[in-house]
Amino acid sequence: MKAAYINQTGPAENIIVGQLPDPTPTGSQVLVRMRAASVNPIDTYVRSGLAAPPNMPLPFIIGSDLAGVIAAVGPQAKKLKAGDRVWGANQGILGRQGTFSELAAIDESWLYAMPEHVSDEQAAALALVGITSHVGLVEHAHLQPGETVLVNGGSGGVGSTVIQMARAIGATVIATTSGPEKMEYCRTLGANHVLDYRHDDVPKRVAELTGGVDVWWETSWMPNFDAIFASMKHRGRVILIAGRTSRVEFPVGAFYTKCLSLHGFAMFLTPVEVQRQAAEQIGKWLDAGKLHAKIDRVASLDDAAELHRLQEASDSGAIRGKLVVKI
Amino acid sequence: MKAAYINQTGPAENIIVGQLPDPTPTGSQVLVRMRAASVNPIDTYVRSGLAAPPNMPLPFIIGSDLAGVIAAVGPQAKKLKAGDRVWGANQGILGRQGTFSELAAIDESWLYAMPEHVSDEQAAALALVGITSHVGLVEHAHLQPGETVLVNGGSGGVGSTVIQMARAIGATVIATTSGPEKMEYCRTLGANHVLDYRHDDVPKRVAELTGGVDVWWETSWMPNFDAIFASMKHRGRVILIAGRTSRVEFPVGAFYTKCLSLHGFAMFLTPVEVQRQAAEQIGKWLDAGKLHAKIDRVASLDDAAELHRLQEASDSGAIRGKLVVKI
Repeated sequence: MKAAYINQTGPAENIIVGQLPDPTPTGSQVLVRMRAASVNPIDTYVRSGLAAPPNMPLPFIIGSDLAGVIAAVGPQAKKLKAGDRVWGANQGILGRQGTFSELAAIDESWLYAMPEHVSDEQAAALALVGITSHVGLVEHAHLQPGETVLVNGGSGGVGSTVIQMARAIGATVIATTSGPEKMEYCRTLGANHVLDYRHDDVPKRVAELTGGVDVWWETSWMPNFDAIFASMKHRGRVILIAGRTSRVEFPVGAFYTKCLSLHGFAMFLTPVEVQRQAAEQIGKWLDAGKLHAKIDRVASLDDAAELHRLQEASDSGAIRGKLVVKI
Repeated sequence: MKAAYINQTGPAENIIVGQLPDPTPTGSQVLVRMRAASVNPIDTYVRSGLAAPPNMPLPFIIGSDLAGVIAAVGPQAKKLKAGDRVWGANQGILGRQGTFSELAAIDESWLYAMPEHVSDEQAAALALVGITSHVGLVEHAHLQPGETVLVNGGSGGVGSTVIQMARAIGATVIATTSGPEKMEYCRTLGANHVLDYRHDDVPKRVAELTGGVDVWWETSWMPNFDAIFASMKHRGRVILIAGRTSRVEFPVGAFYTKCLSLHGFAMFLTPVEVQRQAAEQIGKWLDAGKLHAKIDRVASLDDAAELHRLQEASDSGAIRGKLVVKI
């Protein structure tokens, strides 16, 4: 089968597109004929070695998200059958092979039924960011209808999904981003208020708009805890999902005297049953048109190295939406 | 009535012991004839002005914790009657008068039935620290039997209560403190393992003893987040309750890649019904002999200023246990 893989961690140039042996599903694995996959920041950290697992198989197929159709099932697979359309995330880490290949053997516990009217590209593009957003908002922040969420970085892959999902849950959403084009994009996603973090005094504007937020979703690598805590209501919850190498100042008094909580998580360490609950709700929202991924481009497996370079340049505005491959 | 009060915030010398008019219970207040009260760090912050509420009544009676007996009830008080023994905390803040007085008019929602075999001094000494410990361990950390708790600063007022309570819940407890005498004290409180934070490499010793802790209870004003996060299991919870003016470094990656959460709270902002649930469980543990306050001394209202000076010198070892007044 054709696959995009590496023989050792390092720069995007290490990605090879070529032939690897077809995998065989064992145990409760199924064989998925891939139709689409997408790129996430974690893919580049694994590939570069920044977050490579100690038990990484080599050659290692890159990629976490997928959409495809079942081609065969392993002897203990019970839920899925050949011909079923599926989607999923959480591959290419913790010793598992990735998804940038024509075929993959994946444990059926990581695969979700594809809603009828959803495209492979949409499901693949929303897999990791969608599950991340749901786990953060529901499992960690316990977001309730009528509460207010601030999404700091609302136009990115996760941020844009958090905006839509918080609205679907019934929350009021304040998004921050930079520049009129991205601000308009956040509005089209459903944000009730949009601020420009380069020009607006965010805590001051939050106070004027809402008197404080219940949930702050941080996407920046360098969270500004002074501004965050100043923007929160008492008993507010802050979600942290990025900043692997960051060290920032933490104002202790502002945190505890407001009875705040801070919740960090890495989606790929979230228990499989929690991810499945998220995926089932995401399936319903996708089918109902309440969630939609903005896709920057749909490329082919041959473009894998270039897609990683684009993903790594995303902070400088290289992409506007998800990078997807059609397989 | 005799009371210890201030006419303006400032040093301990501002505390006056003298006569004030007897209060009259209105609404759902009851009149408590005080028998004991105790000193907590928050009392000194309120008195000094560091944490004085904007609507502080003047003259302001100091003190938060209390034990006493009902002398009279207000027209809407429904739960308590004259002669009932009660205990409580959470006075002397948020615009309410304190407890260092012969009489106090207190809303009955803040008062709890005194267990039969418990002394006024014990209940007053355990009120704020006990409710704080319970709210942190149960409401915020969701501590489960069989989990491991590290109490950083196990010989202090809150720390010594957290050790006992975590053991009563069925957790394994690691306590840190300094010097052989305090280490032995932590052992008598029930700590399974005791470390000296001046000499031990805490994360290394935690790894050897337990492979990581589920809950870290921080009592220090300057939390060392590198050491804390290195000591935690995945999905561990950290409790912060002090450090009003502290700023410390926060390693973002170590926090979120371990799926940790950080919970800050000020006991006096905890909802009244959550405090009552804590108080009811504390009453049962007190009655069963599972909780015991170490009392440094029992003094009189006349000693109030000296008690505040001692409390403020507690970091330099001026006291070994709670400061209590018998009224």
